[in-house]
Amino acid sequence: MDAPESLLAHLYTVGTLENVDGGVRFALKNRLFAATLTGVSRVELDGRAIPPEDVTLELGGREFRARDLDGGVPFPLRQTVHVRLVSPALDPGTHTLGLTITADPFGTLSFDVADAVVSRGERTDRRIPRADDNTSPAVILERRRFVERVCGADLHHVAQYSLDPAETEGNVENFIGVAQVPIGVAGPLRVNGEHAQGEFLIPMATSEGTLVASYNRGMKLLNAAGGVTCTVADEAMQRAPVFVFDSAREARSFRDWVDAHIDELRSAAEATTSRGKLIYIDTFLASRYAYLRFNFTTGDAAGQNMVGRATFAACSWILERVEGVRHFYLESNLGTDKKASQLNTLRTRGKRVTAEALVPASDLEQVMRASPAGLQRHAQAANVGAFLSGVNNNGLHSANGITALFIATGQDVANVAESSAGILHTELTPTGDLYVSITIPSLIVGTVGGGTGLATQRECLDMLACRGEGKARKLAEIVAGVVLAGELSLASAISSLDWVSSHEQYGRNRA
Amino acid sequence: MDAPESLLAHLYTVGTLENVDGGVRFALKNRLFAATLTGVSRVELDGRAIPPEDVTLELGGREFRARDLDGGVPFPLRQTVHVRLVSPALDPGTHTLGLTITADPFGTLSFDVADAVVSRGERTDRRIPRADDNTSPAVILERRRFVERVCGADLHHVAQYSLDPAETEGNVENFIGVAQVPIGVAGPLRVNGEHAQGEFLIPMATSEGTLVASYNRGMKLLNAAGGVTCTVADEAMQRAPVFVFDSAREARSFRDWVDAHIDELRSAAEATTSRGKLIYIDTFLASRYAYLRFNFTTGDAAGQNMVGRATFAACSWILERVEGVRHFYLESNLGTDKKASQLNTLRTRGKRVTAEALVPASDLEQVMRASPAGLQRHAQAANVGAFLSGVNNNGLHSANGITALFIATGQDVANVAESSAGILHTELTPTGDLYVSITIPSLIVGTVGGGTGLATQRECLDMLACRGEGKARKLAEIVAGVVLAGELSLASAISSLDWVSSHEQYGRNRA
Amino acid sequence: MDAPESLLAHLYTVGTLENVDGGVRFALKNRLFAATLTGVSRVELDGRAIPPEDVTLELGGREFRARDLDGGVPFPLRQTVHVRLVSPALDPGTHTLGLTITADPFGTLSFDVADAVVSRGERTDRRIPRADDNTSPAVILERRRFVERVCGADLHHVAQYSLDPAETEGNVENFIGVAQVPIGVAGPLRVNGEHAQGEFLIPMATSEGTLVASYNRGMKLLNAAGGVTCTVADEAMQRAPVFVFDSAREARSFRDWVDAHIDELRSAAEATTSRGKLIYIDTFLASRYAYLRFNFTTGDAAGQNMVGRATFAACSWILERVEGVRHFYLESNLGTDKKASQLNTLRTRGKRVTAEALVPASDLEQVMRASPAGLQRHAQAANVGAFLSGVNNNGLHSANGITALFIATGQDVANVAESSAGILHTELTPTGDLYVSITIPSLIVGTVGGGTGLATQRECLDMLACRGEGKARKLAEIVAGVVLAGELSLASAISSLDWVSSHEQYGRNRA
Amino acid sequence: MDAPESLLAHLYTVGTLENVDGGVRFALKNRLFAATLTGVSRVELDGRAIPPEDVTLELGGREFRARDLDGGVPFPLRQTVHVRLVSPALDPGTHTLGLTITADPFGTLSFDVADAVVSRGERTDRRIPRADDNTSPAVILERRRFVERVCGADLHHVAQYSLDPAETEGNVENFIGVAQVPIGVAGPLRVNGEHAQGEFLIPMATSEGTLVASYNRGMKLLNAAGGVTCTVADEAMQRAPVFVFDSAREARSFRDWVDAHIDELRSAAEATTSRGKLIYIDTFLASRYAYLRFNFTTGDAAGQNMVGRATFAACSWILERVEGVRHFYLESNLGTDKKASQLNTLRTRGKRVTAEALVPASDLEQVMRASPAGLQRHAQAANVGAFLSGVNNNGLHSANGITALFIATGQDVANVAESSAGILHTELTPTGDLYVSITIPSLIVGTVGGGTGLATQRECLDMLACRGEGKARKLAEIVAGVVLAGELSLASAISSLDWVSSHEQYGRNRA
Repeated sequence: MDAPESLLAHLYTVGTLENVDGGVRFALKNRLFAATLTGVSRVELDGRAIPPEDVTLELGGREFRARDLDGGVPFPLRQTVHVRLVSPALDPGTHTLGLTITADPFGTLSFDVADAVVSRGERTDRRIPRADDNTSPAVILERRRFVERVCGADLHHVAQYSLDPAETEGNVENFIGVAQVPIGVAGPLRVNGEHAQGEFLIPMATSEGTLVASYNRGMKLLNAAGGVTCTVADEAMQRAPVFVFDSAREARSFRDWVDAHIDELRSAAEATTSRGKLIYIDTFLASRYAYLRFNFTTGDAAGQNMVGRATFAACSWILERVEGVRHFYLESNLGTDKKASQLNTLRTRGKRVTAEALVPASDLEQVMRASPAGLQRHAQAANVGAFLSGVNNNGLHSANGITALFIATGQDVANVAESSAGILHTELTPTGDLYVSITIPSLIVGTVGGGTGLATQRECLDMLACRGEGKARKLAEIVAGVVLAGELSLASAISSLDWVSSHEQYGRNRA
Repeated sequence: MDAPESLLAHLYTVGTLENVDGGVRFALKNRLFAATLTGVSRVELDGRAIPPEDVTLELGGREFRARDLDGGVPFPLRQTVHVRLVSPALDPGTHTLGLTITADPFGTLSFDVADAVVSRGERTDRRIPRADDNTSPAVILERRRFVERVCGADLHHVAQYSLDPAETEGNVENFIGVAQVPIGVAGPLRVNGEHAQGEFLIPMATSEGTLVASYNRGMKLLNAAGGVTCTVADEAMQRAPVFVFDSAREARSFRDWVDAHIDELRSAAEATTSRGKLIYIDTFLASRYAYLRFNFTTGDAAGQNMVGRATFAACSWILERVEGVRHFYLESNLGTDKKASQLNTLRTRGKRVTAEALVPASDLEQVMRASPAGLQRHAQAANVGAFLSGVNNNGLHSANGITALFIATGQDVANVAESSAGILHTELTPTGDLYVSITIPSLIVGTVGGGTGLATQRECLDMLACRGEGKARKLAEIVAGVVLAGELSLASAISSLDWVSSHEQYGRNRA
Repeated sequence: MDAPESLLAHLYTVGTLENVDGGVRFALKNRLFAATLTGVSRVELDGRAIPPEDVTLELGGREFRARDLDGGVPFPLRQTVHVRLVSPALDPGTHTLGLTITADPFGTLSFDVADAVVSRGERTDRRIPRADDNTSPAVILERRRFVERVCGADLHHVAQYSLDPAETEGNVENFIGVAQVPIGVAGPLRVNGEHAQGEFLIPMATSEGTLVASYNRGMKLLNAAGGVTCTVADEAMQRAPVFVFDSAREARSFRDWVDAHIDELRSAAEATTSRGKLIYIDTFLASRYAYLRFNFTTGDAAGQNMVGRATFAACSWILERVEGVRHFYLESNLGTDKKASQLNTLRTRGKRVTAEALVPASDLEQVMRASPAGLQRHAQAANVGAFLSGVNNNGLHSANGITALFIATGQDVANVAESSAGILHTELTPTGDLYVSITIPSLIVGTVGGGTGLATQRECLDMLACRGEGKARKLAEIVAGVVLAGELSLASAISSLDWVSSHEQYGRNRA
Repeated sequence: MDAPESLLAHLYTVGTLENVDGGVRFALKNRLFAATLTGVSRVELDGRAIPPEDVTLELGGREFRARDLDGGVPFPLRQTVHVRLVSPALDPGTHTLGLTITADPFGTLSFDVADAVVSRGERTDRRIPRADDNTSPAVILERRRFVERVCGADLHHVAQYSLDPAETEGNVENFIGVAQVPIGVAGPLRVNGEHAQGEFLIPMATSEGTLVASYNRGMKLLNAAGGVTCTVADEAMQRAPVFVFDSAREARSFRDWVDAHIDELRSAAEATTSRGKLIYIDTFLASRYAYLRFNFTTGDAAGQNMVGRATFAACSWILERVEGVRHFYLESNLGTDKKASQLNTLRTRGKRVTAEALVPASDLEQVMRASPAGLQRHAQAANVGAFLSGVNNNGLHSANGITALFIATGQDVANVAESSAGILHTELTPTGDLYVSITIPSLIVGTVGGGTGLATQRECLDMLACRGEGKARKLAEIVAGVVLAGELSLASAISSLDWVSSHEQYGRNRA
């Protein structure tokens, strides 16, 4: 692969050449996807090759010899490798740099750039303090002091944490401390899943009063009814690039070409990930745009990054082969990441999971002072209301339970945007009991990666026995069960109020 | 007002009569809305009046004399007052209870119920430990131990917090500790709002790596462009009850009746709140349902509870006057709380706020390696993508910034469901620069109430000088400005990749 | 009013100056709204005033003296007045024209333009034949011959019509004949409306086999149930201009200005129409756009043109007074004319009408071999299906009946796009019968104007006793009743099939 | 196949046993799908076999011998075969009937039913006259007289038609005459399609004045720009049954079963049709429902009936094999026939066709007095408007042109509900010209079947050289081209008004 001709070469930025003690250094910044740096085979300065023994790499506070990266050095997204050379100091002005590296999974990449050596600008008063080891106690303290000075705020509580800041490296930049979000415990909830079986105590991180109590009531009801049955029906994570052509007809030809090359695209995509598997590509044509929606399974990770990297690799493979692509964008609003969409409701994003229960009338009456007919009547009125308002959830408030669980267990909480969609369905049975279900079509959960490894989040996952590999579907089942508890609880409250008002309306029990 | 005939009497549940040391006690549970208990004028047991001096109230670990509640005792939602009487122990079996109280803002309420005295059931092994003072260190510890025993989990980190658990009383039930969510700081961001003016350092609580860095880049760009201009265009918080009639014609008459009684409804609603003001009622008719969508301003609180209470009071006023209401439900999916809906995008929920900037081509190129034409081209492709997918945000990822700010500042994070809607708009100016704006039609923020008073959240609000009264619009402006920074940052990244691929595609600059 | 400064002056185009027998003529074309020409006070050619007695107007095959237009001459939209002057022939090249007219409702308008006299181009072989009297038998025949020659098609049947082509002047241009659409009759249908009362025979123009028969079955069922109850709940017709400003803040100020000037806007709008009444203006803000959605009642006309004209006049009034409007467009996709939208479902377009019935189980079984429970079960499954698909009608096929009635009665059939929205609702009653209703939120019908005066369409309106003034709501009720008949008929067919399959499934009645 | 166990046996209803001259007769009614009756192998009355020579069939006014149906007798949907037996008159009361027939494509079907002989009721005054030969001049006249008498209406014009009523048999029931819809001709329009190439004169049946003229202007513009390029990207016609199970998990298993049996399902479906091909089945799961959306190509027919029949056959095959189906409905609102839906926009219904053109600025200015920048600006404002309103078409009025063409060419006009969806896209090119396209994602057209064979409709198809086999894609291309002409014309009109107002706004050219 001739790197300079490849889109891949542009994954990295080379620059900020500067004189330092004992030599010269420049930066190699990872712009797009996490990778592993496995070799440095060429470094040139102003056309002169630098011997490998004169080259040192610095990354995340550690140093590596350029010729000895065996096994490879993890090179996280947005991180910078500083390449240091033994060299006389450079004159101010423009110099040329050459660099060839190998990075897994992207292969060999070469850069030849010109850069200027300038005297470093002074830090302004308003610039957030940073350091090479950016999670050392010193720099964290310096940042807090800076914030306190600039804002006149006291960060006493923000500074009280037990997690190890170094563990937040992949989770946050410019760390200054933590938000303490109160956790209440609800349950137990009996879940009859395929992956989650038995009773679970539920950690809910929230600042909304009565939320935990309300879900708790719903769990009692579900337990009385024998528990909640949960089923994961489907899973997929997406990235949806768009390719722009000169005409609709070319876009159509491209769609056909993609259909004919699905196996090669799968290979290109899956080469970048051990977990991710490309299931299928949905294509959508409009105007002279061809939208490709790549659908992956992602193991036990939520998987947005994995999927982005794999899709990028597949697109790179495409761009090297297809003529006539006028523009290419890696995202097009057909992935609908962090957003609610009809497409997600239809086609699944994350997990599609249903929680259902058959609730006896007697339990509903005793636990909730509500009746199956009352809940059914309310659900029908709410269905018409949902149809009028164009809402993406005809249930009541699944976002409440989902958010509390997401914060507690280290999920990407912004995915509440997608995960809050829901399809509530109730039926009166011939025996007068209530069948109730909620289907969450785009529940995005993971049990590895992201925030799942943070100190308190890890503990909350342990509460659910959902930490690590093989647990994502189990977690999805539990979330769905909790959501159904919340629906029953609030629907009963609303419905019991109707009972009261109807009762009064018709004048019974009056003096 | 004849209380027993009123819907209001059913705000509370009276029951769980039991023998205790030195007498008898029963529970008065607040089911629906926070109130203030201002008097107890009658207590009867089996038809016998109990003298006031023999009656004691217990609430939240404190005791009150029934005849001396001067000023009133706050009676939070879902809390229970235990009423204790000096009395001989009761025989097992059914007894009658009478109780008359006054509760602000609901007036005088009377209850006459029958209840049975039973021997108390044993706590099962699986029941979460609770106590009257449910945030004492002892019971919190007991709960953690219980969780650790039942789940086999270690809650070491969850137990490390600096907040005062007693302060979480209105925020969570069954408190066991906190989730520590890492906070990174971004900025400063220059905001040219009507309420927020100047540079702000932004606390972002997240576990998603690169998020803070990415927003930070966007802020740099906005600063270079002179800052971001933010405008709150509208505000409203809703509750949408539904009234069910025998026919569509009756529902229509009711709609007309409501239109004719808006002033009285406003009075009834506003009697329950000092901050909330009823702006208008939207009515929607379908089948034999009449949906009323009450729209309020709520001062500096997000206001969902306030609005629920006020709407309930107005509906109670209606139900006492209108014949023919067959059913009534306080929510109908036209409020669309915690859910994304077209209605919210159209009609505002929370704040409707726009952030806009005129970004010079030169800044965009220098800071982002992107061009106005490139961003515009991508925005157009993404608009078509949005139209195809039925997404509620044609921008890229506003939920990311909103969620991080919501967690940091104690907002109700489940409102990300509504707040993640957005309308991105870009234009190329005649001079080749970029006009860009994002309108968030349903941004739900408050600077009083909810989680804003929690320890770390308070500090983060202080970072933004947004704590307390008169700050909600300011906070809304800052959030919108941050969101626009994130849009520019990610759009530039996507667009710069196109620059690369187009560049390669057309073979320029090859060796 | 200083005409040249007014937007109104641009309602007309002046041009195509040419030499004709005995003088010179030029064209005044009506570009935007029907009006009445009430006077010509100035005609100038190359700076020379032409005396009124030397000026003749030609419009629609008739001639008028410029100084004698008493009562005014109707000047329909897209028509051209040819102004003929006694004058020597002009040399080829540029000349100047001056013209001042008065046109009701727009007032005095002046034009001063330069135009070039050219030799008239020859008609090409491919140009559709036209004449001044463009509906004379001769030109119609010439057009058909032209089409037959060019296309090699035989228009024998298209030429068979009984309507008077001159009557189609306001309905179609380049008339060549008619489409004969078969009409079947269904019914009678018993309607219990406020405007439609009694039994109606329904004319349905369609080419879809079984449609009439299927609706007929549904009518039999409704009749058995005592008829269908229909209620018009609301009405409104819209035009939604957009005003573009430099910033969101200016757009917001404009919104407030509009709210403060609603009375003047009403006056300006209503000055252009005798029937139309401005009810209210909905405003929607996004980015730096201010969208105004004008809502009118339109008497018994569908009213799109009336509303366009009135909104234009109001906008003209605005544009003369408001500084800072950068752009203005008379339509913005918030009127959603000829399109399905959530907004129409929410806020009514045309008529909002509900048809409802209480159908006894026995009737449903005898007439349809279906049961209330079966229909209810199907409706629930279809509701979930509707939610998944994002459809704008959770019923089955209201477009079928609406289209057949629209073609028969001369409605604007393209409004099927809006009118096909629907909200179906069914309930099982405690006695096991079926309550069923359909609400059509945007049914656009008129009984005057448009195609309602055409020969066969007039007769079909007569069948329903719905021709002319005061009948639009009656027609809306009948349409809704017909639609409900169609829903019951098809739902029963689908549901009866389930009965069969369930029956078989469970193995009963086997040999 | 053992017919009585099959769902197929219930395609027909046997009943209405009665005494007639010379024997006895009963009815066999076709309830669901058109078929061909190929044999009658058994007729029994009260257990007694009737010899074939004593059995006669009557269908559509013709008689057939039961033992001599060679080639088969077409048995249209909703028609009734009367089976006449030589037999003594039956006593009033219940009798048993046995019948075995063969019907293509459904095979051998047996019926054994009990029915009662009753004296026939009298025709009421309000019953629409019918006859066995229901399109004879006599009965048509009788119906018109009936309507005229009952309604007091004169049907003079409705009675003027040149089509042969017998030809309307498959198109309408209870024929009384025709609606005469005026046709105007527009064009020619130059189309650069794959199927439509050259200039076309366009027949538009409408009653909306200015529509033909407006489209005509747009065509002139497109011709000046070299014509409109049209591309059919996809095609599919759907029917979407739903299967109801006891639990979500069973629904999921069923989904997997269906995926595994796609080949058998294809065979079962395609056995019922010579044209229809099953492309794929989309499955959607929610609650305990499994929705299957069958996607077919349908040759040159619109194909709804074909697809319904084929889907029914596949479902019948399923129902005989799958245990646990609690209910089954042939439609579920995921087919979204005759309705607008997001799903159709995403996944194509009918044809997905794009029309596009590159319009030089000079042509736009000369023909339309508008500029590319002006149209682009309006399109952007309209895009935001579309996003706010939740409209299914961000263009202006494609329903106008589509409806006029649908009426003229015998399409199912109710499909305007789906076909009116559209995705308009405009771009300014680097040279300042306008790229414009419209994609119609669900355009439903056919050139065989339905109303395409009616007299005037056939002629209009001939005008476009689009009659019969192999022409459906050509017609789709022409429709799309016409739609784009209409978009350009109206957008230019709206945009030119802005030009005027901006012009005035900034005070240029004032005296």
